[in-house]
Amino acid sequence: MTIDASIPAAVVLLSGGMDSVTLLHYVVRDLKVPLVHALSFHYGQKHSRELEMAHWQVRAAGLKVHLELDIRLLSDITRGGSALTDPAIEVPDLASLSPDALRQPPTYVPNRNMILLSLAAAYAESQGMSHVFFGAQQQDAYGYWDCTAAFVEGLNAVLAQNHGVPVRIMAPFVHRSKREIVAIGRSLGVDYAHTWSCYRGGETPCGTCPTCVERERALGPE
Amino acid sequence: MTIDASIPAAVVLLSGGMDSVTLLHYVVRDLKVPLVHALSFHYGQKHSRELEMAHWQVRAAGLKVHLELDIRLLSDITRGGSALTDPAIEVPDLASLSPDALRQPPTYVPNRNMILLSLAAAYAESQGMSHVFFGAQQQDAYGYWDCTAAFVEGLNAVLAQNHGVPVRIMAPFVHRSKREIVAIGRSLGVDYAHTWSCYRGGETPCGTCPTCVERERALGPE
Repeated sequence: MTIDASIPAAVVLLSGGMDSVTLLHYVVRDLKVPLVHALSFHYGQKHSRELEMAHWQVRAAGLKVHLELDIRLLSDITRGGSALTDPAIEVPDLASLSPDALRQPPTYVPNRNMILLSLAAAYAESQGMSHVFFGAQQQDAYGYWDCTAAFVEGLNAVLAQNHGVPVRIMAPFVHRSKREIVAIGRSLGVDYAHTWSCYRGGETPCGTCPTCVERERALGPE
Repeated sequence: MTIDASIPAAVVLLSGGMDSVTLLHYVVRDLKVPLVHALSFHYGQKHSRELEMAHWQVRAAGLKVHLELDIRLLSDITRGGSALTDPAIEVPDLASLSPDALRQPPTYVPNRNMILLSLAAAYAESQGMSHVFFGAQQQDAYGYWDCTAAFVEGLNAVLAQNHGVPVRIMAPFVHRSKREIVAIGRSLGVDYAHTWSCYRGGETPCGTCPTCVERERALGPE
């Protein structure tokens, strides 16, 4: 994805995980977008402590605006649909997932990213901000259809129909591995101690859920 | 749009206006979809009394499930962006709008329909319901890019990427005028006294805002 060097203002979707935190600092420090608003969602995720990390990182990046939207109704309408939001569904260990289950894992939240991105696009459009940055990365594409380049391109094709100034979604890490993202982040001085991954949302990371395993692989030695 | 005669279950987006009310009865009585859930949104619209009409029509259609979601955060994030949700912006008379203003009128709510449809799709997917019905009609296409056939096709192209069973949006009235929709509704016995259109949301319809004028033209004599 080519990034226009002259983006004047952008919204960054910020979960508080490694990918979106790196993205935030990349947009501010590397792309040097002059006006950046961070947007986080409380959607009923068990690991809502990721939002504390988001707050910390927003301060570290020196942003003035961090919007946190409460859309916990998402966990109501997807009841039974995801281990990420439904207390009755266990978050599985990565090792326990069959190849078939990996195609759309229990931690997938039905249509979550289209919802988050359409809200972000509405906010950006209302603010006259032309871009929304989204931290999708390559390693999620296996199981999450809403984390792929094709998904982003499809949504951009729809948004481009706007009769006014269309908002464009940018996913600069969509072809990057988490390891590559960490390398970018470290070059920008990102403090990964202030990011949260574990889906189980306990006091300390479980170490065995899919995102804990991937985090460890990305941060650890070769 | 060809409608598969064997849709087992569908969600109908129901505002309480003429088009979506007709759609509801069309899906139940004409398409005879066996399982129908109605979905309405309180998004901070001034004319929230349309929701009372939605309730009445759901009972008239004999539905068991009517979900009403509170997404008033939409009016917060689009503050300044729409006369439909911002008390500080007047709803204009249709007669006062220039051709240029009609291209994206003040009553347009930034990205509203993508938000509503993506929430509806999430709900449908979680319920295992394969279709979402959307009451877009031809006469809104002039000014609302998110009420067109191209918009619906674009979203369906994205939703079709789902690794599980994709949800499909159906907009059977997208090439119909409001007059044609009323003719369909009357043939189905729809009671238009229990629908609400006026954007100004007063005790009685103003008679001059865009939707009041269009309603009168659709319901009145040739």
